[in-house]
Amino acid sequence: MRATVMYGAGDVRVENVPDPTIQQPTDAIVRVVRSCVCGSDLWPYGSLPATEHGQRMGHEFLGVVEELGSDVSGLKRGDLVVAPFVWADNTCDFCAEGLHTSCRHGGTWGRDGIDGGQGEAVRVPQAQGTLVKLPVAEDSALLPSLLTLSDVFCTGHHCAVTAGVGPRTTVTVVGDGAVGLSAVLAAKRLGAERIILMGRHKDRTDLGRDFGATDVVGERGEEGIERVRELTGGDGTQTVLECVGTLPALQMSIGAVRAGGTISRVGAPQYGEVPFGFPEFMSNVTLTGGVAPARAYIEELLPDVLEGRFEPGRVFDRTVDLDGVPDGYRAMADREALKVLVQP
Amino acid sequence: MRATVMYGAGDVRVENVPDPTIQQPTDAIVRVVRSCVCGSDLWPYGSLPATEHGQRMGHEFLGVVEELGSDVSGLKRGDLVVAPFVWADNTCDFCAEGLHTSCRHGGTWGRDGIDGGQGEAVRVPQAQGTLVKLPVAEDSALLPSLLTLSDVFCTGHHCAVTAGVGPRTTVTVVGDGAVGLSAVLAAKRLGAERIILMGRHKDRTDLGRDFGATDVVGERGEEGIERVRELTGGDGTQTVLECVGTLPALQMSIGAVRAGGTISRVGAPQYGEVPFGFPEFMSNVTLTGGVAPARAYIEELLPDVLEGRFEPGRVFDRTVDLDGVPDGYRAMADREALKVLVQP
Repeated sequence: MRATVMYGAGDVRVENVPDPTIQQPTDAIVRVVRSCVCGSDLWPYGSLPATEHGQRMGHEFLGVVEELGSDVSGLKRGDLVVAPFVWADNTCDFCAEGLHTSCRHGGTWGRDGIDGGQGEAVRVPQAQGTLVKLPVAEDSALLPSLLTLSDVFCTGHHCAVTAGVGPRTTVTVVGDGAVGLSAVLAAKRLGAERIILMGRHKDRTDLGRDFGATDVVGERGEEGIERVRELTGGDGTQTVLECVGTLPALQMSIGAVRAGGTISRVGAPQYGEVPFGFPEFMSNVTLTGGVAPARAYIEELLPDVLEGRFEPGRVFDRTVDLDGVPDGYRAMADREALKVLVQP
Repeated sequence: MRATVMYGAGDVRVENVPDPTIQQPTDAIVRVVRSCVCGSDLWPYGSLPATEHGQRMGHEFLGVVEELGSDVSGLKRGDLVVAPFVWADNTCDFCAEGLHTSCRHGGTWGRDGIDGGQGEAVRVPQAQGTLVKLPVAEDSALLPSLLTLSDVFCTGHHCAVTAGVGPRTTVTVVGDGAVGLSAVLAAKRLGAERIILMGRHKDRTDLGRDFGATDVVGERGEEGIERVRELTGGDGTQTVLECVGTLPALQMSIGAVRAGGTISRVGAPQYGEVPFGFPEFMSNVTLTGGVAPARAYIEELLPDVLEGRFEPGRVFDRTVDLDGVPDGYRAMADREALKVLVQP
């Protein structure tokens, strides 16, 4: 089959790789119907050291079950399923707590002999725990929104949930990428009273307004912090959803949060140290968040997507086939595209 | 009157200062019956640059109301009252949320013309909001435990509450000082299933066992982390209560916390940067806590102290009069005394 392999920064190729086969009785083989490129794929796209063997890419996909190991129940050939962005048994103590990203028998797509999602098919380990059946046909217009349950909408939701967003909460969302916009949508869905979106790209912040942002702040750094403070009577917002992962984004988050408030971060941190010393201690600010256990949220979010109440798939603004994946990476890195859908 | 003034590191004096008088209609004058020295007083005791004017000390006291401003209701002369370690109006939006340390009309003892607690009397601003009446006589044997409601027991409680300690929670407490031991007691009171106390001073960890610690870990650094991991099947504990404030204590906390868990810090941070990067992101660890809004907790904790179910006052192992305060600082700094009670 054909699949996406990254050989180093800027070097993405679509190549022939071995067809996946059942290796464990808990495996399934899924033919990929939709996949996509993640903002987090852009970190290695910008900095991966060149390698000979390359790395399989993609951790968001939905598709059709083609084959099942003997231990997998609850699924059958022909089912349309979505895969969360880590695989997990959905039965261990961590999974039971909703922390599937720390599953005792789980792991990451594209590593250690596991296929990535940006290809024609995937061997899915722990298939029974990992895959969630979607009650639609594979030509459904809902596929883009359903695909966001794999990662980006669940990540925005995780950010909002861990921050404690609810009715009467004021929220600042840092970042107008697909995760930031998903966080806006998730905050709106949870009933947030006010959602200030920090972003500078009008087409993106316009979508953010459609998703529920009540204010847009285009300034960054100290100016951005000051603007959020102005909008909130000097106090900042009770929650800040940090959806970028850089130190300046984190610094803005710390500047924009109200005393007693919570910063949740879901952008993969490109820093090792958090400036969280005496002032943050005196104002009782909490730092939470982390990699999103998407699997924990799919059942909860699915009805709102199926019934069209929320359309997280609007973050996709370009569609490519497998051959178009390398250009999809380039378009996202150049900010030509917000998020690229892959239709193999 | 006489009061404690610190003129620089190691230079604590008891001196004549002006008698407090009502300055605002919201003030009260309280004659101090019991005060104490705080672990946080040891930071300036170790490092305060020498000054000519000195700094008034003490932020924990209980005493008798001697005079009341015209706007103070709910209190009368002769009432025995406890003061939390910041003063606050108890009516603003932050106070209503239980964050009295961020009160819009509050402040700190010993600063800006406000008396400290380590003296004969104190002018209490925002007296109606700040002071809590104690239904005992001023010779009650409960005074030491009631005094801990001013700071140390409430600080331990804040640490446990913000960490999310409850029944079935596993807890590591970092530090066997008075705050750490209070955190053990608070975790026990909240029903924690297992409480691992990290500390090396047998007399203190013995009191920690009396307070509810189920395990004691004397090792520090990597060895300490490994020992906590051994005790918890490799996972660490769901909550870590960081009661020291140094970077090594924070590093131990990060090493001892379970994936998905929470570190709460109540030791005033002697660091500016928190090593909270990619690994902590991947394991969804939360960092919370901060300076404790003691006022928010006094009514909740008071019955358990009055009825003798909990005896947080056992952290006091030495009593001095006002003249003995400088030696009290020395004894705490030299770890001769755990916590020094002052009886003016």
